[in-house]
Amino acid sequence: MKHIHIIGIGTGNPEHVTIQAINAMNAADVIFLPLKGAAKEELAEVRREICERYIARPGIRISEFAVPQRQTAERSYAQSVDTWHGEIAHIYGELIAGLPEDGSGAFLVWGDPSLYDSTIRIVERVRQQVDLDFDYTVVPGITSIQALAASHKIPVNLVGRPIEITTGRRLARKGLQAPTTVVMLDGEQAFAKIDDPNAEIFWGAYLGTKDEIVRSGRLGDVAADILTLRSEARQRHGWIMDIYLLRKGRDFEE
Amino acid sequence: MKHIHIIGIGTGNPEHVTIQAINAMNAADVIFLPLKGAAKEELAEVRREICERYIARPGIRISEFAVPQRQTAERSYAQSVDTWHGEIAHIYGELIAGLPEDGSGAFLVWGDPSLYDSTIRIVERVRQQVDLDFDYTVVPGITSIQALAASHKIPVNLVGRPIEITTGRRLARKGLQAPTTVVMLDGEQAFAKIDDPNAEIFWGAYLGTKDEIVRSGRLGDVAADILTLRSEARQRHGWIMDIYLLRKGRDFEE
Repeated sequence: MKHIHIIGIGTGNPEHVTIQAINAMNAADVIFLPLKGAAKEELAEVRREICERYIARPGIRISEFAVPQRQTAERSYAQSVDTWHGEIAHIYGELIAGLPEDGSGAFLVWGDPSLYDSTIRIVERVRQQVDLDFDYTVVPGITSIQALAASHKIPVNLVGRPIEITTGRRLARKGLQAPTTVVMLDGEQAFAKIDDPNAEIFWGAYLGTKDEIVRSGRLGDVAADILTLRSEARQRHGWIMDIYLLRKGRDFEE
Repeated sequence: MKHIHIIGIGTGNPEHVTIQAINAMNAADVIFLPLKGAAKEELAEVRREICERYIARPGIRISEFAVPQRQTAERSYAQSVDTWHGEIAHIYGELIAGLPEDGSGAFLVWGDPSLYDSTIRIVERVRQQVDLDFDYTVVPGITSIQALAASHKIPVNLVGRPIEITTGRRLARKGLQAPTTVVMLDGEQAFAKIDDPNAEIFWGAYLGTKDEIVRSGRLGDVAADILTLRSEARQRHGWIMDIYLLRKGRDFEE
């Protein structure tokens, strides 16, 4: 039977890669590398560097494929993602069909395959919809949340307290609820809109790469700074990936 | 100046270790290994195996130290943790003081140092309270959340939806709120107490080790099974580390 490895590779530092990930890469016949347009060429570069550095077994083929853009016009968020996943599933189906008999392929996933990534979901869709016999396994990777916390040298949670991981859109709507809130996928800089100046923010962009920027402080003091930094960095690079953590309260407060 | 590496080593599979962690271990003069009583001897064994497998530079010393038990009688949870951290900080202070001048030490942390672990917090306490000149860096590691999701081959979040990470005690009190709730540190099996039979549970114990057990299904169908499995496994091993994820709803529901 054909086999697919879905491999988390961390957030941009090639040293985030685990021994398990390296072994899975070297067990594959083909490594599938997604291309997501010029803006993310730097990310594709990191993936290529990881392949060059860690693939030791001769004969492994690298296969790059273009990822379609998500269409958002005249449809809800859920509809637009659902349709987009269908298109990607079609491409995955062709890639898997093209593997040698009993061969194996590997998808390298930014961060960890379980966190705000749809590779598992789409591979599962291919299994259910396409007449292809294959199984798959998942190799965990370092997430941007952990890279953020490591760079700031902070625990994510307060002692014994909960953590919320959410999106910018939802933070803007609901405000700050949990003692720790981690915000991913924030295209609207929701931190600058919430009325909680005494919260602490720990922000980071391009985490793990040579261009990493981090900033932290009382939200009321640093929010404007971070907006400026972010906007300048985005212009300079042509793209940005950032994440932040908001904290209310302190350890051992009862 | 002395330097401390706080290194995440994953959840029991020695292959969870990252290249960054291996490099940090090999940059240290001394590796500090905590001993936490007979019940956790198996965990100490995994740490020793990681050292044997990955330490390549000659002359690195392994220093084992006993971790005190947390005293819970006649004090609140916060007080008991605070006092306990004070005791551990005293031990860390002595370990760091014993390093050679300009030398470096490494603490190996189960999972990731940022998630329900206090090594960062305690090292920071040593810096603030003890007259010792040192700095430290943090190396992220694979968490049990990611190991759980990888073993079940599931995404943690539903598409675009939030995640809550919480404790068993709090889940029992508040019930199931978020579309995805990850429960850590659950000594009371709160999943069996909540009235949400249609939620899905994804449970795992001893994740990453040769003894890994996983179970999933509709909570109403499998909760009793998991209670039995857990209790038998705990008796067999003398200890247990488990974690689970609860999910309400499905992708693309609006």
